Amino acid sequence: MEAAAAAGRDARGRAASHPRGPGEKSPPDRKVYMDYNATTPLEPEVIQAMTEAMREAWGNPSSPYPAGRKAKDIIDSARENIAKMIGGKPQDIIFTSGGTESNNLVIHSVVKHFHRTHASEGTRAKPSGPLAGAVPHLITCTVEHDSIRLPLEHLLEEQVAAVTFVPVSKVNGQVEVEDILAAVRPATCLVTIMLANNETGVIMPISEISQRIKALNQKRAASGLPVILLHTDAAQALGKQRVDVEDLGVDFLTIVGHKFYGPRIGALYIRGLGELTPLYPMLFGGGQERNFRPGTENTPMIAGLGKPIPQRLYRVARPWGDRVHEPNKRTDVRRSLQLCRHPRGVLSEAAELVTKNCEAYEAHMRDVRDYLEEQLEAEFDKQRIHLNSRFPGTERLPNTCNFSIRGPQLQGRLVLAQCRTLLASVGAACHSDHADRPSPVLLSCGIPFDVARNALRLSVGRSTTRADVDVVVRDLKQAVARLEGQA
Amino acid sequence: MEAAAAAGRDARGRAASHPRGPGEKSPPDRKVYMDYNATTPLEPEVIQAMTEAMREAWGNPSSPYPAGRKAKDIIDSARENIAKMIGGKPQDIIFTSGGTESNNLVIHSVVKHFHRTHASEGTRAKPSGPLAGAVPHLITCTVEHDSIRLPLEHLLEEQVAAVTFVPVSKVNGQVEVEDILAAVRPATCLVTIMLANNETGVIMPISEISQRIKALNQKRAASGLPVILLHTDAAQALGKQRVDVEDLGVDFLTIVGHKFYGPRIGALYIRGLGELTPLYPMLFGGGQERNFRPGTENTPMIAGLGKPIPQRLYRVARPWGDRVHEPNKRTDVRRSLQLCRHPRGVLSEAAELVTKNCEAYEAHMRDVRDYLEEQLEAEFDKQRIHLNSRFPGTERLPNTCNFSIRGPQLQGRLVLAQCRTLLASVGAACHSDHADRPSPVLLSCGIPFDVARNALRLSVGRSTTRADVDVVVRDLKQAVARLEGQA
Ligand SMILES: Cc1ncc(COP(=O)(O)O)c(C=O)c1O
Ligand SMILES: Cc1ncc(COP(=O)(O)O)c(C=O)c1O
Repeated sequence: MEAAAAAGRDARGRAASHPRGPGEKSPPDRKVYMDYNATTPLEPEVIQAMTEAMREAWGNPSSPYPAGRKAKDIIDSARENIAKMIGGKPQDIIFTSGGTESNNLVIHSVVKHFHRTHASEGTRAKPSGPLAGAVPHLITCTVEHDSIRLPLEHLLEEQVAAVTFVPVSKVNGQVEVEDILAAVRPATCLVTIMLANNETGVIMPISEISQRIKALNQKRAASGLPVILLHTDAAQALGKQRVDVEDLGVDFLTIVGHKFYGPRIGALYIRGLGELTPLYPMLFGGGQERNFRPGTENTPMIAGLGKPIPQRLYRVARPWGDRVHEPNKRTDVRRSLQLCRHPRGVLSEAAELVTKNCEAYEAHMRDVRDYLEEQLEAEFDKQRIHLNSRFPGTERLPNTCNFSIRGPQLQGRLVLAQCRTLLASVGAACHSDHADRPSPVLLSCGIPFDVARNALRLSVGRSTTRADVDVVVRDLKQAVARLEGQA
Repeated sequence: MEAAAAAGRDARGRAASHPRGPGEKSPPDRKVYMDYNATTPLEPEVIQAMTEAMREAWGNPSSPYPAGRKAKDIIDSARENIAKMIGGKPQDIIFTSGGTESNNLVIHSVVKHFHRTHASEGTRAKPSGPLAGAVPHLITCTVEHDSIRLPLEHLLEEQVAAVTFVPVSKVNGQVEVEDILAAVRPATCLVTIMLANNETGVIMPISEISQRIKALNQKRAASGLPVILLHTDAAQALGKQRVDVEDLGVDFLTIVGHKFYGPRIGALYIRGLGELTPLYPMLFGGGQERNFRPGTENTPMIAGLGKPIPQRLYRVARPWGDRVHEPNKRTDVRRSLQLCRHPRGVLSEAAELVTKNCEAYEAHMRDVRDYLEEQLEAEFDKQRIHLNSRFPGTERLPNTCNFSIRGPQLQGRLVLAQCRTLLASVGAACHSDHADRPSPVLLSCGIPFDVARNALRLSVGRSTTRADVDVVVRDLKQAVARLEGQA
């Protein structure tokens, strides 16, 4: 019962969306979790898959006997499944410990490759050519996650790379394709731009960037300049909108399990791994992941990742959208039971569901999020609500609502502290200890200081309901009333 | 039932030690797993702890509300628990994705520190001093795991460090303290020697090395030379013998969960982290693990690691050793039930068990392993058995038996392929695809080529019995008979 609630629904499988810990009793203390961009709960079926893997596939995947081979099979299936989810090839996926590692690995790799092929490094003899002695140049934008921003700042500090942080537009929160192009230098070897921002939900124009870079790369090749590779951190986009590496035209894509109801590991997509696109490992060891990422594989976590969107989600999403396909329950149950026996079968099964249902999840979240924004504007004086991420003409994630309630005492943190039901955040979870500094991401997007200081980031999930929204808006009103009463 | 069997015992909790996959039926197809050095199964209680964490502590540990705080509490408790297990301080432990990462991180960090403090790097101005322009020098031995050997070889190849691979003694399989000392140079900044070898089980003289290095460091300080830090990879020793960072006198110690019935993550002990001993991160990101190892924490895995040796093991170990304390079953059950509510309590509970029972586990494994060696010599012609890891006067792990059956057709791989019950390996699992090359570790230890080619590594676990040994020895005899019949 607690467990089902924790996963966002009650024991009967109805949506509850107020995960409760053991210490928290229901109605009066009911909580509504709207921080799905920070992390998502694991679906019971994913937990089940992981538990089964822990029991039955605990062998070392490098061992040749059945306990090992079974683990290897699970890993292979999960790889196929992840690949399918993003329209890539299984051999182009490697598993990592998480998004932070995937992002750092991309940066490490391109810098290493540049040094190997175009410039001098350490005590090696200086090669000649148009870039002899140059350091690699990388381009990013000013609203990236710390797992992109900080490794780049570290390279700068170490003077082993040059980096351009392109500001995002203060009009629409997006990075402008022209600005990226204008930042290109002879030594540019990577453009890394997130697919969707974690705080505003703003979606970046990755395919346009890709097209322009491809055209540029053809010219550069002729003059012996390095190819510019394109990376996107898709941590926040996956599971919220369709993500396809062909449409995006990226060379690298970061995958983070716990943002899409999967476990705390990650993966990295590398187009034509080792052939088209080189990858220089950060770790050296026992040869796992074809030496690109050694270390005994974390089979249960990989099993969980390979099964990111379980079958029951179907039924959960159904109440709010007819487009959701109703599965044949008999078959469904039978298939779940087969899970323990034939992980391969079920993993492919789950991959089909991702492809089939992503639009429906997206539509559901968009409906609830739009309702939230309507209700905020209706229940507060419309002038008081500033929707920090609704930019004209800009697409954004269907689940993210970043807003401020204007007022001198209404800093985001104070408002949240007064809320009795709402669980949300003021920005990235990993910055939760940075007291009252307004979010640098919002400031970059042109949100005025006083407004940014009051920002709240609410992010809904697949089981959040309009009823949850009503509860949350009421809670916010009371919180504000209390704060203003105190003032 | 399958699950219980997989974890090394049957549904009634009696030792079975022949983990079975779903496809494998009992008696005729019974398997005996003797590859506990490759990996260990998870105890059902550890799986339970992880499952509970997945359900109830899925929040982002950086989030300030209860779902996040609960996750943070679990991580804090696990850290305390790991620290206690090795006699260290909780603040000196950081969690990593595994042993490979821990080992690579140590090497990365000392090299970085050397460059920062003693030598020139990249475009920085050259500092002066006794080591200006020098590269750091690291010392290791020739029988380390690939996650030490390969990062060191990589540094050599990149010409950013010098490395001495000290050969182990061909008389006793150990690295000699004098040889380590003789390898020291002015630029030496790290000695990394494993605590116990994964193939032979030979235990290295870490505390002697530590004492000698400490004495040397005092002299070196006076001449402005870098302090030599000492790292030990304790992957194979933990859970098999007492490991104490004070007795060992190490600065770094690598911890690998899946070698001691825990999950597939790792940890690193760093003496006086950030104060006495600097640590330079490999990854940059959201600030987790005090920035030493960022990335959203893998709470369930950390929960599992923090509870490495569950309470039921007690009862399992008991049939073979009276020294094992019999717990109060009532309290025990009550405490297991509390697990879901108060992870902190139970985690500390499990740590006490490690400290209390480690000797008993060790005694049990030693008994079974010694019986195995006796039986091998009794059942085969004594001349035909070569015990590859029984060196005069050398301590070794209580659970590891590396031996060869002499004969022209009896290469390790061929013998294993003929076995119908035994699941074991010819060496490190990650080398399982290296066909018939004899183990370089054994060759380093002075085992002749023809003998090394026939080597088998059998490693027993906490639930392996003498009866299992009888079955395995019979199986080996039949395998050999078949191979020689074929010849
Ligand atoms: C955009 C983005 N990238 C990367 C990450 C890093 O993921 P993790 O902390 O799981 O390594 C996150 C989440 O924290 C994120 O929101
Ligand atoms: C001695 C030793 N060190 C390190 C490791 C590496 O551990 P992992 O592969 O889990 O990263 C192992 C096990 O494979 C080992 O036996």
